[in-house]
Amino acid sequence: MDFAFDARTEELRERLLTFMDEHVYPAEQTAHEQRSALASPWDTPAVVEELKAEARRQGLWNLFFVDQHSLPDEEHGAGLTNLQYAPLAEITGRSPQLAPTALNCAAPDTGNMEVLAQFGNEAQQKQWLRPLLAGEIRSAFAMTEPEVASSDATNIETHIARDGEDYVINGRKWYISGAMNPLCQIFIVMGKTDPDGADIRRQQSMVLVPRDTPGVIVKRAMQVYGYEDHYHGGHAEVLFKDVRVPVANLIGEEGGGFGIAQARLGPGRIHHCMRLIGMAERAIELMCRRAVSRTAFGKPLAQQGVVQGWIADARVAVEQLRLLVLKTAWLMDTVGNKGAHTEIQAIKIATPRTVVDILDKAVQLHGAGGVSQDFPLAELWAAARTLRLADGPDEVHQRSLARREIKRYL
Amino acid sequence: MDFAFDARTEELRERLLTFMDEHVYPAEQTAHEQRSALASPWDTPAVVEELKAEARRQGLWNLFFVDQHSLPDEEHGAGLTNLQYAPLAEITGRSPQLAPTALNCAAPDTGNMEVLAQFGNEAQQKQWLRPLLAGEIRSAFAMTEPEVASSDATNIETHIARDGEDYVINGRKWYISGAMNPLCQIFIVMGKTDPDGADIRRQQSMVLVPRDTPGVIVKRAMQVYGYEDHYHGGHAEVLFKDVRVPVANLIGEEGGGFGIAQARLGPGRIHHCMRLIGMAERAIELMCRRAVSRTAFGKPLAQQGVVQGWIADARVAVEQLRLLVLKTAWLMDTVGNKGAHTEIQAIKIATPRTVVDILDKAVQLHGAGGVSQDFPLAELWAAARTLRLADGPDEVHQRSLARREIKRYL
Amino acid sequence: MDFAFDARTEELRERLLTFMDEHVYPAEQTAHEQRSALASPWDTPAVVEELKAEARRQGLWNLFFVDQHSLPDEEHGAGLTNLQYAPLAEITGRSPQLAPTALNCAAPDTGNMEVLAQFGNEAQQKQWLRPLLAGEIRSAFAMTEPEVASSDATNIETHIARDGEDYVINGRKWYISGAMNPLCQIFIVMGKTDPDGADIRRQQSMVLVPRDTPGVIVKRAMQVYGYEDHYHGGHAEVLFKDVRVPVANLIGEEGGGFGIAQARLGPGRIHHCMRLIGMAERAIELMCRRAVSRTAFGKPLAQQGVVQGWIADARVAVEQLRLLVLKTAWLMDTVGNKGAHTEIQAIKIATPRTVVDILDKAVQLHGAGGVSQDFPLAELWAAARTLRLADGPDEVHQRSLARREIKRYL
Amino acid sequence: MDFAFDARTEELRERLLTFMDEHVYPAEQTAHEQRSALASPWDTPAVVEELKAEARRQGLWNLFFVDQHSLPDEEHGAGLTNLQYAPLAEITGRSPQLAPTALNCAAPDTGNMEVLAQFGNEAQQKQWLRPLLAGEIRSAFAMTEPEVASSDATNIETHIARDGEDYVINGRKWYISGAMNPLCQIFIVMGKTDPDGADIRRQQSMVLVPRDTPGVIVKRAMQVYGYEDHYHGGHAEVLFKDVRVPVANLIGEEGGGFGIAQARLGPGRIHHCMRLIGMAERAIELMCRRAVSRTAFGKPLAQQGVVQGWIADARVAVEQLRLLVLKTAWLMDTVGNKGAHTEIQAIKIATPRTVVDILDKAVQLHGAGGVSQDFPLAELWAAARTLRLADGPDEVHQRSLARREIKRYL
Repeated sequence: MDFAFDARTEELRERLLTFMDEHVYPAEQTAHEQRSALASPWDTPAVVEELKAEARRQGLWNLFFVDQHSLPDEEHGAGLTNLQYAPLAEITGRSPQLAPTALNCAAPDTGNMEVLAQFGNEAQQKQWLRPLLAGEIRSAFAMTEPEVASSDATNIETHIARDGEDYVINGRKWYISGAMNPLCQIFIVMGKTDPDGADIRRQQSMVLVPRDTPGVIVKRAMQVYGYEDHYHGGHAEVLFKDVRVPVANLIGEEGGGFGIAQARLGPGRIHHCMRLIGMAERAIELMCRRAVSRTAFGKPLAQQGVVQGWIADARVAVEQLRLLVLKTAWLMDTVGNKGAHTEIQAIKIATPRTVVDILDKAVQLHGAGGVSQDFPLAELWAAARTLRLADGPDEVHQRSLARREIKRYL
Repeated sequence: MDFAFDARTEELRERLLTFMDEHVYPAEQTAHEQRSALASPWDTPAVVEELKAEARRQGLWNLFFVDQHSLPDEEHGAGLTNLQYAPLAEITGRSPQLAPTALNCAAPDTGNMEVLAQFGNEAQQKQWLRPLLAGEIRSAFAMTEPEVASSDATNIETHIARDGEDYVINGRKWYISGAMNPLCQIFIVMGKTDPDGADIRRQQSMVLVPRDTPGVIVKRAMQVYGYEDHYHGGHAEVLFKDVRVPVANLIGEEGGGFGIAQARLGPGRIHHCMRLIGMAERAIELMCRRAVSRTAFGKPLAQQGVVQGWIADARVAVEQLRLLVLKTAWLMDTVGNKGAHTEIQAIKIATPRTVVDILDKAVQLHGAGGVSQDFPLAELWAAARTLRLADGPDEVHQRSLARREIKRYL
Repeated sequence: MDFAFDARTEELRERLLTFMDEHVYPAEQTAHEQRSALASPWDTPAVVEELKAEARRQGLWNLFFVDQHSLPDEEHGAGLTNLQYAPLAEITGRSPQLAPTALNCAAPDTGNMEVLAQFGNEAQQKQWLRPLLAGEIRSAFAMTEPEVASSDATNIETHIARDGEDYVINGRKWYISGAMNPLCQIFIVMGKTDPDGADIRRQQSMVLVPRDTPGVIVKRAMQVYGYEDHYHGGHAEVLFKDVRVPVANLIGEEGGGFGIAQARLGPGRIHHCMRLIGMAERAIELMCRRAVSRTAFGKPLAQQGVVQGWIADARVAVEQLRLLVLKTAWLMDTVGNKGAHTEIQAIKIATPRTVVDILDKAVQLHGAGGVSQDFPLAELWAAARTLRLADGPDEVHQRSLARREIKRYL
Repeated sequence: MDFAFDARTEELRERLLTFMDEHVYPAEQTAHEQRSALASPWDTPAVVEELKAEARRQGLWNLFFVDQHSLPDEEHGAGLTNLQYAPLAEITGRSPQLAPTALNCAAPDTGNMEVLAQFGNEAQQKQWLRPLLAGEIRSAFAMTEPEVASSDATNIETHIARDGEDYVINGRKWYISGAMNPLCQIFIVMGKTDPDGADIRRQQSMVLVPRDTPGVIVKRAMQVYGYEDHYHGGHAEVLFKDVRVPVANLIGEEGGGFGIAQARLGPGRIHHCMRLIGMAERAIELMCRRAVSRTAFGKPLAQQGVVQGWIADARVAVEQLRLLVLKTAWLMDTVGNKGAHTEIQAIKIATPRTVVDILDKAVQLHGAGGVSQDFPLAELWAAARTLRLADGPDEVHQRSLARREIKRYL
């Protein structure tokens, strides 16, 4: 057992921290200003592309783990393990609107690239994976639906009907992250090709649907506590009305959709958790800075027991969380995503709610400023709070984890 | 000791509940639609004026407590006690964007009308109180400042300098509720006329500043977790740059500002608490409706222990809160606002955080819908959460209440 | 609506507070010393009988509500309503080991007296109710069993078999409060006379079993977090082995046991809640006294924000709880125990857990002293914590209350 | 970074788990029975000595970390690092009344042995360390005092006055763990040799006081929530009245007491935390076993969402805690106890309160059984709860940790 990062990780952390200081943090204000001058709030501020170019130049690009053997060629991807990527992803979480995108490590593209690398055929990889790896386009993953508890993929109601050499898709999706961004050119759509199939985990398939396909209607931006999340391309409601794509757009095989979704979940969850920890670190930093600069009752907040308690509890919680996330990454690397199932679920339960609490304390410490647009805290809170629901509410994961725990005693 | 409402209260509750069912709830959707078609989001949807006219016609107008003897004439105000008003205010909290305004019982107008009734002179009442009582204009209360812990009025930094027959005002205020609404024509501005005065509670004064006075700059809408709160006229940042008003605009006497602010607080706090309880009731209703209509793990949410726990705890908490708010209203009626000081503080501490918790559970129960604009829950949550900061953070009130508790043993 | 106590209540409160100051609190130390010199820890210290005599002399005797028309004669009982009794019971909770017994208002005797007054026949009342009302004997209520979730009386497994003119009882009970006290001379035993009956709420009956009946084995004292609760006669495990009593010992009718148990619950719960609030008040007092007398980090605990937060939150919570308990008492008086069902359940859920939290904070504030025998806090905590289980765990009541709440929307 | 145990740890874990199964768990019931037949509850049941002999035979003896170079000779101690010892200590925490003693790894002996090994001279080691390492005697650490916040050693009031070739000790100590056990033959007493010294951290010294020294009065057993903790030799109040020992009994140098106490703290805290995690694991096991064997509302507790939530949350919390404790052990091994200061404080804050919560849920799940002596849960809870106070209340550690966190931003 050894708790030190390896040399490659240390070196990349160093470089990434420098990149954050020199490029990302200074760009935050610029990006906000550029955005307010854009024709559409869904367009991308110029500084984002500059950050991407700089990151690529510095080799801080596609850092997330992806099996090198699945890639169309070896020029893409940094070839890191999950354990090596974890502390880097955490750092990007400190500036979540810019840093993940700058490094081409933003959701949902990372998950989509993994799907294409692992399950896409050569043509699909050439058409969609290459431009994604190059950061030229964005993508969306169209799974969740408003009418059903869609954290369970077996509940999905969207229909993908075979019609000759085409699939015809009908359904309503919402909270499709990234889809408001006009650069988002490809949707991976999850639906049922065999809705009456005996095996409820073989009813689903995934197909690639280009954004400009007739019948694809990006209807509206869903809100998250009043935010529309422009930097991430929002969270769209998308209608699929008689959308027709060639059968060649099927990813993997018919009936394989559930399995692909499962494979996609583990990395997706751990990336979110890593970034959440970065958000928590930023909240702690902001709390400390506020505590030393504000006075109440005649002494700095930093000297008040209540504030000290908040800061101490935040630190104690984050140290524990980080270790569990790192161990989970290590398990994914050593025994695979399936072997790390319990731990992946554990971090999915623990991370958002812990970080929500820390952010809430940080908001409280900032007074009216905390709930305002002048600090990032309220928006980070909304993002973290939503992750207690996204990809299944806490209660679903608690139930599942508990059942495995209990099973030993049956 | 008697826990039944009196006959007048029962009768008004009945009428108000009917008004809510017949007019307010049906107007919610209409108002949203009308608003999206407005030239400015700060304008008022037509249906709001219709609601006001109907409420006035039905005698459901100016229900909040205000000393009748202080009013310019007797035609205004329903003449209710705080205890009679409390359960009515609660009902309006079930539709907080429309109902309080419909009944001319919305913050900050109620508090401002009380100030004018109690401390304004005849001319001030004629010019500003009458149109406020008539619902013809709106008003704002400009106290809080970004640079100081302004829950303590002695920290205020805005300067009100006497210059001949004028006051010249300079300062920066934020979270000035209602000020984004163009109908908001009058600001009560709190500042220091004697910043170096020996008695720190006699340094402050309040002056009336018409919106169109040169130097009044309504700079921007402050956000609350991404919301701008259009229905309440937003929460503005307002700059006062060499704003000049005649000395006749002074409310009460020089040095009386702190005292007026204190007098204004009690009723303001209790109104907020009453409405928060109404919000909690709406959340419970939405939880129950969701619980009976959604299924997970093969049975309705309503039959799941976790959900039952949330609903039971919400009910148990609300019953306790309501009684404390009602008792506080009774104390204000019987021993005055000062005699009710501890209880006013207690409800200020207890109500927002309890209601925040209930709303958070309701959000969780609604999944992605909970954080979205399709249910009122996320926005209600943001409003309730902000009330843990508005008018002083929880910790300020805990400290003050604890000191009084401890004092008995010194 | 009126939150003032009536004159009778005020007068009795005054007298009881004086009695506490003059007799009960001074007796606490005496009682502990006398107890340590007793032959058996289950015997009663002499000072307890002196307190009883004094209370009776002062007319502070049998204050709990009991229907006067059910009593064998009118000389017994103070004739108070639940609402009048509530604030008096609260005061006795400040010294729970002595005061309730001193006033002949201790559990489980009060509940047992109510059962006998309401359902007992004349002979039963003469034999058992009179000496109980006179404080000459004590009693126990033998319902809960170790093998089943006995908060639901339908699960009871003890068998009461008719055999000629006798009932023969077999079963195992535990946590039978008071039964270790040799003065406890009569047990009300709940069991099944018709275990296979179609109506599961008509299978149970209650019979009177004198302590000295052959086959009654008071086996051992059950602990509560290490405490044996000597002042209340402990909580015994009791075996009933072929215990034979005449059929005349049946209370009410065969099959009526479940109904009697239900009737007994409401008052029992509210008495517990009242006393718990008294415990909370004592905890707050102790917290304040500690806070002003101890110093840490160079200033009194009373000036530290964390401590202030604990005290403020305790006060705020207690004020709410008390009002709900009082309202529940008022409902029991005005609409009956059934009409007050929801509120009785609400206070059963809210009171123990709130008081547990307050006591835990008080323990923390007292450091090692808090967990020790030198302060009453740890033992009060254990008592309060156990009331989250006694008479059904929180979760049972949450479920039931939630179902009634949800039913409106079905 | 590597999360796998090394081979030596794995091998020892395997052997220790077998020892627990074969010897310790079966001895729990035996020990309870033997104890109830002892002349004094402070005597040691015979089975404990049998366990010690067996453990020693198996080489499961003195496993805790202690610098080999400090030991009087090399035959003692297993030579493990903190990181290797941690998972073993956790296992002993599953049966905390027997296992640590069986392995000669029980507090406060381990800490005292470390002090003697590191700071004792040869004579002191020969006289006291050897029999302690051999498990022939027990020891106590007499630091905490009832009158002062003695978690801060600078507050200690016990006086150690030099008088010729003797020290004369006067003071009152309480919660001196182990001191009720007659085998406890040596006390390390902390007091002030220079109470007026300028440097408040050089006023203290430690001296060895044999139990039978005149003036040492072991006055009474302090309780912990009604428990006296017989297996650990209780927690005594000890008076030192003109206790006279030769100056040769000084440990280290005069004025070195504070430093020795600080050095002793780190390992002591981490041992407690390791064992607490073992307690939590036992609680989870008991919860699961209960959940599969009890039914409520017509289905096993194991299938109820509330219970699943408790179990899942417990698992998630324990996984995080364990990692932080292990990392802390690793830091102690690699950068020393000072370098691990923040993490030691973090686990001191996090572990007791997390385990308290888990045990409380386990109690709730066991109903009346949970608070009784029939399950270990209530007593484990009391032990864990006390560790939120022992060695400094949570709030002291939160303050200290927060100050270090904040310092970076000053």
